[in-house]
Amino acid sequence: MGLVGVDEVVAARAALAGVLRPTGLDAPGFLARATGRPVLLKHEERQRSGSFKLRGAYWRMVGLDPTARAAGVVAASAGNHGQGVAVSASRLGITATVFMPAAAPLPKVQATRRYGATVRLVEGPLADVLAAARDHAGATGATLIEPFDDPAVIAGQGTVGLEIVDGIDTVDASESGSAADHPDPEGEVTVAVPVGGGGLVSGIAVAVRALRPRWRVVGVEAAGAASARAALDAGAPVALPSTETMADGIAVARVGDITYRHLVELVDDVVTVSDDEIARALLLLLERCKTVVEPAGAAALAAVMEGRVGGAPTRPVCAVLSGGNVDPALLGRLVTHGLNASGRFLTTRVALPDRPGALRSLLDVVAALGLNIVDVEHHRSGTDLPVEQVEVRLTLETRDPDHRDAVLRRLEAAGLHPRPA
Amino acid sequence: MGLVGVDEVVAARAALAGVLRPTGLDAPGFLARATGRPVLLKHEERQRSGSFKLRGAYWRMVGLDPTARAAGVVAASAGNHGQGVAVSASRLGITATVFMPAAAPLPKVQATRRYGATVRLVEGPLADVLAAARDHAGATGATLIEPFDDPAVIAGQGTVGLEIVDGIDTVDASESGSAADHPDPEGEVTVAVPVGGGGLVSGIAVAVRALRPRWRVVGVEAAGAASARAALDAGAPVALPSTETMADGIAVARVGDITYRHLVELVDDVVTVSDDEIARALLLLLERCKTVVEPAGAAALAAVMEGRVGGAPTRPVCAVLSGGNVDPALLGRLVTHGLNASGRFLTTRVALPDRPGALRSLLDVVAALGLNIVDVEHHRSGTDLPVEQVEVRLTLETRDPDHRDAVLRRLEAAGLHPRPA
Repeated sequence: MGLVGVDEVVAARAALAGVLRPTGLDAPGFLARATGRPVLLKHEERQRSGSFKLRGAYWRMVGLDPTARAAGVVAASAGNHGQGVAVSASRLGITATVFMPAAAPLPKVQATRRYGATVRLVEGPLADVLAAARDHAGATGATLIEPFDDPAVIAGQGTVGLEIVDGIDTVDASESGSAADHPDPEGEVTVAVPVGGGGLVSGIAVAVRALRPRWRVVGVEAAGAASARAALDAGAPVALPSTETMADGIAVARVGDITYRHLVELVDDVVTVSDDEIARALLLLLERCKTVVEPAGAAALAAVMEGRVGGAPTRPVCAVLSGGNVDPALLGRLVTHGLNASGRFLTTRVALPDRPGALRSLLDVVAALGLNIVDVEHHRSGTDLPVEQVEVRLTLETRDPDHRDAVLRRLEAAGLHPRPA
Repeated sequence: MGLVGVDEVVAARAALAGVLRPTGLDAPGFLARATGRPVLLKHEERQRSGSFKLRGAYWRMVGLDPTARAAGVVAASAGNHGQGVAVSASRLGITATVFMPAAAPLPKVQATRRYGATVRLVEGPLADVLAAARDHAGATGATLIEPFDDPAVIAGQGTVGLEIVDGIDTVDASESGSAADHPDPEGEVTVAVPVGGGGLVSGIAVAVRALRPRWRVVGVEAAGAASARAALDAGAPVALPSTETMADGIAVARVGDITYRHLVELVDDVVTVSDDEIARALLLLLERCKTVVEPAGAAALAAVMEGRVGGAPTRPVCAVLSGGNVDPALLGRLVTHGLNASGRFLTTRVALPDRPGALRSLLDVVAALGLNIVDVEHHRSGTDLPVEQVEVRLTLETRDPDHRDAVLRRLEAAGLHPRPA
């Protein structure tokens, strides 16, 4: 089988016209100032269902004949794909059953139900969830909607690429204040795209390659789940033994066979980012752009901020923010992670004599340094604590990594011997 | 002095044309389904400087003559006003000094500096900060930019109203799916606006009253800082003895004299919302709209969700999200607050016998109820704990208030005697 053609992406866009929410491009000035090149953001976290995933799912279902539609659809998903399938099926009047891991966060289960799908919870790993979905498809005649390795799904995701091509000329770049703000549409633009199974980057590459041959498309993986990078290095898709990343939306152990061919033929490069880099980008989006992305949704911007996407250094780059479905309870921990990764928190332990006034003396030192205290925990028992001492775990607000190091040196100079928390 | 005229608001809009970021209106379908009326959101949290505040500050500075511009401007602010002044001054090439409380969160201080202002930190309450700013103005000839009680500031903020009037016809209301989605521009629309000192609501009322006489404008205050409500009830501005709200952006103890006249003449009603209601609205915006607002920025939507803004029950309402400048470290706590206020967390204490296996038995009960555990703290010492018992503080994920109550009954039935945490 060959590659998906741009004609199918254009057809998908027409079918999706009344379904998609317009998710604009913008070009925050501070990102241009930080990177030295115009940075555009494509806000798919504001897409209906909270991610780009309904694009592919919807176009896949449009292709079902009346008999198949009547038999319904089924999907296995812990997240965005399930929500995309649920919304799409609901819009098309198709019955959807979504199999999810029993351990999925309650908000994701509720969102999938709210979008109109029947949710079945399955104990065990995602492989068991997928097996249950396949069994259901076999038993009922329902169509299994693949999350990425399907030409129609790839074509649907590719509509993001068309929107970037069409939108880039109309972006308000008034904030960046450099000549590079007004990208020559004929010139090079690098599009950075998060990669899990590879459906989104494949579709975008189909669209961009066909319409803007001088543009570049770069995939971005979490370093702990770099299955596309591994496939490209090995010359064929390989299964990673495990995935280790907080970016659950792109934690895929093996890219698809179809998406792999698109990666090889159409994608310029695949790079990786660490979870710390993702957390910093997520925090930047939250704090400066007032927008909520899930960790996977911050991966492309993380690569841009780290200068890892290549291209001519002053030419524009567009980072696709792929989704915003993050459990609120998790979001608080991600923010803390991002603050730590940016050197804006210092969490440290100090031992104090167990006598009145000792904690107060410590706080005097902290106050003299002009530091805001985020948290103080005072423990009278600890694994390695002499009986005459108490331990205090301090979380302080710092400006950046240099400031954090300076504070540690000042605490040491005050005789407090700060230790890692 | 009379009221601000709409002509001045129109003039402010022209002056602000190259300065403002376009902050669209949208109409998320789920809000219409939840309230039974179309709900539009005006996204000023995405405005340059993170709030609407630069509108008034900029227009005020445009009116300064060359001598005054050369002498610079000064402001006293713990937050958005300072950032709005800093950005505006920077755009106009005016020197700005912003006096801030020494206890202001580091990110707000840094943002104000980043926007180009000189920041002076002042120990003590906001009154002392204001006094220092006035002293600086007196000593240097710099112009003090008032945060709200100034006709030019009111006119600048009123440009938000013009944008709502102009934008409402073009909102994509495809998601709401009811006849009310396409608001008759001649018919009634209620605009809900957060109120601190009253500058924003006054300006919006000037614009809306002049251009859409059948529309309504309703102010929304935090119940713990309801100085506009108090002024309207007393027949004159009064100073509240204190303000008690997490919505620091609208925690103003006394409305202005000029804004008070606008409230009396042009604003239909002023209603209040509790901090719990604000936290729930903030969480809704974060989770469903993927957008970050500060507590003050969620107040108007909170009033809409609580059915408190009035008007014909199926006619549209537009909630102004006034700002998004929230300390990331605080945001995590606000999310937790919102989850608690929505019944989606249950935090409870149970006492267990101090013997091996006791904690595990408790967790078995929790698992049998199918509950996700957010946090477990296990304490061997407590103020009211018999020596043969340990205390466990459990935070569990629940669906809603009914589910939370049901879980409490089940824990009681299992003999665990849950107590408030």
